[in-house]
Amino acid sequence: MEATEEVQRTFEIGVVVPKRIRDQVGEGYGHDCVEVLVDEFHKVGLIIDRVAGLHDEFIKLAAPVEILGKAAAELRLKKRTHIGVDIQFEWDEADAFIRQADGSFFSWCERFRCYNHMIYGIVNKSDSAIILKSNCRDVRWEPGEPLVWKLETEAIVKEVFPLHDERKRKQLLKNWAFNWWDFTNQPIDEIYAYYGTKIATYFAFLGMYTKWLFFPAAFGLFLQLVDFGYLQLFVLPFFFIFIISWAVFFFQFWKRRNSTLLARWQISYSVGAESAYKYMDMEWSSFHSSVGTVKKLGDGKTKEKVNIHREEWFGRMMRFRNDAIIILSIICLQLPFELAYAHLYESIRNDIFKFGLTAIYLFAIQYLTQFGGKVSVKLIKHEQNENSEYRANSLVYKVFGLFFMQSYIGILYHAILHRNFMTLRQVLIQRLIISEVLENVMENSLPYIKYSYTKYRAVRTKRKREKGPSVSPRKSYFTSRVEKEYFKPRYSASIGEEFEDGLFDEFLELALQFGMIMMFACAFPPAFAFAALSNVAEIRADALKILAMYRRPVPRVAATIGAWLNIFQFLIVVSICTNCVLLACLYDSEGKWAISPGLAAILIMEHVLLLIKFGFSRIVPEFTLLVGTEWVKANRMKNATQAQNMCSKQLLRNISGGRGAFATDAEKTTTEKTATEKID
Amino acid sequence: MEATEEVQRTFEIGVVVPKRIRDQVGEGYGHDCVEVLVDEFHKVGLIIDRVAGLHDEFIKLAAPVEILGKAAAELRLKKRTHIGVDIQFEWDEADAFIRQADGSFFSWCERFRCYNHMIYGIVNKSDSAIILKSNCRDVRWEPGEPLVWKLETEAIVKEVFPLHDERKRKQLLKNWAFNWWDFTNQPIDEIYAYYGTKIATYFAFLGMYTKWLFFPAAFGLFLQLVDFGYLQLFVLPFFFIFIISWAVFFFQFWKRRNSTLLARWQISYSVGAESAYKYMDMEWSSFHSSVGTVKKLGDGKTKEKVNIHREEWFGRMMRFRNDAIIILSIICLQLPFELAYAHLYESIRNDIFKFGLTAIYLFAIQYLTQFGGKVSVKLIKHEQNENSEYRANSLVYKVFGLFFMQSYIGILYHAILHRNFMTLRQVLIQRLIISEVLENVMENSLPYIKYSYTKYRAVRTKRKREKGPSVSPRKSYFTSRVEKEYFKPRYSASIGEEFEDGLFDEFLELALQFGMIMMFACAFPPAFAFAALSNVAEIRADALKILAMYRRPVPRVAATIGAWLNIFQFLIVVSICTNCVLLACLYDSEGKWAISPGLAAILIMEHVLLLIKFGFSRIVPEFTLLVGTEWVKANRMKNATQAQNMCSKQLLRNISGGRGAFATDAEKTTTEKTATEKID
Repeated sequence: MEATEEVQRTFEIGVVVPKRIRDQVGEGYGHDCVEVLVDEFHKVGLIIDRVAGLHDEFIKLAAPVEILGKAAAELRLKKRTHIGVDIQFEWDEADAFIRQADGSFFSWCERFRCYNHMIYGIVNKSDSAIILKSNCRDVRWEPGEPLVWKLETEAIVKEVFPLHDERKRKQLLKNWAFNWWDFTNQPIDEIYAYYGTKIATYFAFLGMYTKWLFFPAAFGLFLQLVDFGYLQLFVLPFFFIFIISWAVFFFQFWKRRNSTLLARWQISYSVGAESAYKYMDMEWSSFHSSVGTVKKLGDGKTKEKVNIHREEWFGRMMRFRNDAIIILSIICLQLPFELAYAHLYESIRNDIFKFGLTAIYLFAIQYLTQFGGKVSVKLIKHEQNENSEYRANSLVYKVFGLFFMQSYIGILYHAILHRNFMTLRQVLIQRLIISEVLENVMENSLPYIKYSYTKYRAVRTKRKREKGPSVSPRKSYFTSRVEKEYFKPRYSASIGEEFEDGLFDEFLELALQFGMIMMFACAFPPAFAFAALSNVAEIRADALKILAMYRRPVPRVAATIGAWLNIFQFLIVVSICTNCVLLACLYDSEGKWAISPGLAAILIMEHVLLLIKFGFSRIVPEFTLLVGTEWVKANRMKNATQAQNMCSKQLLRNISGGRGAFATDAEKTTTEKTATEKID
Repeated sequence: MEATEEVQRTFEIGVVVPKRIRDQVGEGYGHDCVEVLVDEFHKVGLIIDRVAGLHDEFIKLAAPVEILGKAAAELRLKKRTHIGVDIQFEWDEADAFIRQADGSFFSWCERFRCYNHMIYGIVNKSDSAIILKSNCRDVRWEPGEPLVWKLETEAIVKEVFPLHDERKRKQLLKNWAFNWWDFTNQPIDEIYAYYGTKIATYFAFLGMYTKWLFFPAAFGLFLQLVDFGYLQLFVLPFFFIFIISWAVFFFQFWKRRNSTLLARWQISYSVGAESAYKYMDMEWSSFHSSVGTVKKLGDGKTKEKVNIHREEWFGRMMRFRNDAIIILSIICLQLPFELAYAHLYESIRNDIFKFGLTAIYLFAIQYLTQFGGKVSVKLIKHEQNENSEYRANSLVYKVFGLFFMQSYIGILYHAILHRNFMTLRQVLIQRLIISEVLENVMENSLPYIKYSYTKYRAVRTKRKREKGPSVSPRKSYFTSRVEKEYFKPRYSASIGEEFEDGLFDEFLELALQFGMIMMFACAFPPAFAFAALSNVAEIRADALKILAMYRRPVPRVAATIGAWLNIFQFLIVVSICTNCVLLACLYDSEGKWAISPGLAAILIMEHVLLLIKFGFSRIVPEFTLLVGTEWVKANRMKNATQAQNMCSKQLLRNISGGRGAFATDAEKTTTEKTATEKID
């Protein structure tokens, strides 16, 4: 294993530093900043390749498996062992741990954590500050200060980003992105190995969703093409019941599939897993201090409890306030705006005015949603959410609320108030085909344009600086792949980079499409066929995008579709209600059906209450009430990790060294103690 | 601690054996059965008190805390330690474990498990069978056979049952059952210490529910007493929204309270906790064999996987079939029957006929529900449910379905079809007051009557046997408290003893009451006041019943209200729908409101779909789909326990012996090894 690793050394992390301007070398005191950095990387054990670019220099980093193992042991990374339990990693007992499917030792996510730990773990171990020089600037590297962090704040290290692995990337391009005839099948395990859990989960979901979509697509097309005569009356309700059951079953089976995938990838996913992604220093320090805490807790228990309770309730109040702000602003600001547009569009006869109105509208909502997203991000920052996963979920709910109103209110207006099914179908077709195709094209071309522009600008600046007429062809500037990657845009969400990556946009697109086809299923059954086709294209387009257009994304730990599952479930409930309204409108084309206003008021109240009940028990407890009181959690969690860590070494020795020796573990302790202490 | 235990020796387990008939002592070969039993108990270390009763002899057992500790270590019982983690118990490191609130070492549930382990763990250790004699009968006690199990199958040991602790029982009677002025407050921790988690959880729920019930009760009474004039129209919808929000919030806060209680009792409750209640021999043996299994799994993985998959799907099919049988029989058999009764009751004018009809109906449903319960129990036995908790939940859902139809369909009939609100209110009042009062009286008197009858019969048989005119007063027969307890009935469910104890009936009563007041809230707001009053009485009546009328119940591990929570949530959703119907009927007293049949059909379809969606996502995944594939579980669970057990000893030593010595654990291993091996 180690031998193969040696042969095909793949550089996985790139560090961007400014190119040295030759004139200043050797002047005065102090060390050159980049040289020190490279030197420190060498000391850690990383393998280095330096590439000069147009303006910047790129330090490509790779690590032998032993170095990664050492970092993993320092990080107290938990890995699945052969007996099926997750245990803290120890390099000496490496045989006890299960390898990845492709034979490598660490998954991409684990490797990334190790790299991060090594790169950001370089501190000034000497007693005095070291003066670093970089192109006319001096930086004081204080004792105990992390080097890369320091250089990042001084804007000397411009970026640290994961690099594509050309071999694997080309393989994935061949097997996945250009493998159109596989339809919904994808090499999920390879995607997992290359991109980590979260992206693999998205593509697994997309593939399964598209596969399942073929059933209602066929049914919908069948309904459209065949005339059922006098049975026509009963066909639509049947279709309605069919798609609701289809959706309910699909999500149950998705949960199954998700847990199967997690088992295959040897991941035990729990609520707190996201936090493992951060550096565990904090956890570790609390472990050391907890010996004292145990006693301290006995005395100050009530006081601490009161504090924790107060914090918990304060956080809950803040969340409640934020939710109220978002919900009220959606209802009071966005709803009238959307209705006004829908009404104007309906009442204007002139096509040119219509076009102008739509242009203004599109321009306005572009800004409105961005503004809404920014406000949500701001609000969430003030919430005291436990971990970044809760935060991301909170953001997803809030932003989805905005898009929900924006996407569906206009359509519902056409359907219900005007009973204008022709416009409704037009809008549906338009949104499904044109917007999806356009979006796909945009999604793929926009990053390429960005990339080209960045490249063009870099070349122009370079030319300007050289000031001479450069006769050499443009191409010669880009000898290095790493620079090309650096010019590529990051895989980030359109609403804000803090909590989510580009998958947010992908999931949003999927959820809006799902809502569109489910909520208006009875008005336009063939929509499912459009969605299925568009998704088959989406799979390959997304694959191409993520492989060719963007930098390699930072691997994320989340291994379920998270908050989106609740949103999909919510859309199913909403679609039950909207389809009933549609059916009523469809069958009552002459407007003869009457409903007393009192009864209508009661029905509206019922539906509002049902939605509140559903929303409250589905979405709210998920991240507030169900987790129990914070005090309970704080009390429980404090020592659970610690205890497991303490005994893991012992256990590990038993698994790796002779698997039958469970009973005689005590004897081995003393002999192997010295070996383990070396690494500690 | 041990000293106090010695002083107030309380006998906690009673074993019933036949009284020896004096004539046969000393005859022939073999040992006397009871003497052998007592001897073996002595050998285990139990303290024995023998009491002669009318026909039987009672062996009362107590255990010093060291003996319990030894049994707990053998059982590999997990206990909460001072660092907050659950670790396998070791007597030598007893200081590491947290004591109960009352200062004792083991909770009642743990003690019961230890007693069971000791009593049923007595096996014939000699090489040859031992002949035991008991009143003219010979029993061959084969080598390796558990003694008590053998004697139970031979009907010599009639019963092994937990005994009341007179001191604590009297204290609870004073503090709890007769403490009427506390209203909803109860000494939950004392109840927990005496009865274990499940019963304490029930009373905590009952108390909190009753306390919360005072709000809608006051509101309901206020609505009844005050005339709002022209605002009357808006008052009822407001009340409706209020009670729905009240119910939603109540259950969220109950979840909170439940987790707080669990934290206070130092219980970490997980899905698999129920299985810990059984003897862990199976688990233990799988631990020993798993060393081999790890390798075997590598080869036969696919085959085993296929098998597990097949079993899983077969089990799911069986469950689905059973659910379908129950649902269909409820809809096709019970629904017409209930409707027929309601219709007849409405159409018959003669009061005498009405009375007769009701009598016949009550007689019929008595048998029908018992029959339905029996069928459910039978069906569930054929299901391959993972553990007894799932089974109990499955039974709860099925039996509640029966009672749901039985209790509410007639009332709904009055409300909707006949719009007869007077009859509806009458029925509600009748059910709430009369039936609850009657039920309480019955609940309390029935066990007493049973007890008196058993006692009377025993005395009569005794008298007959003695054949002489006994002049001594009756009382003299009952010198022993243990015999009185033996004559008391067991605390068991009315539908079948296998899966549930008496709490099933209590929860059923609560759920039916909750459904009654919630579903018809708008028709009769003061119902909440009746319910609140009846529950205040119920708390003390149930306390009295469980303390005085029944034997001490076997402690059960379940520490949440389990399936009942889902049923309560379901009732909230149903009550949103029924109250809307009621409101529509109420406001439309002249029958002027019209609804087109097409619209009505669509609305009905919508509600059916919503209920299916709700039911599917709430109740079904709970015990089938959400747990992931069985294969995943089997693969995961196999080693998790084992690994924890392996390292727990090591960890324990660190906690108990010098809590600061976390780092230097390895040194202590050799010195303490001999100490631990003694107990192993």
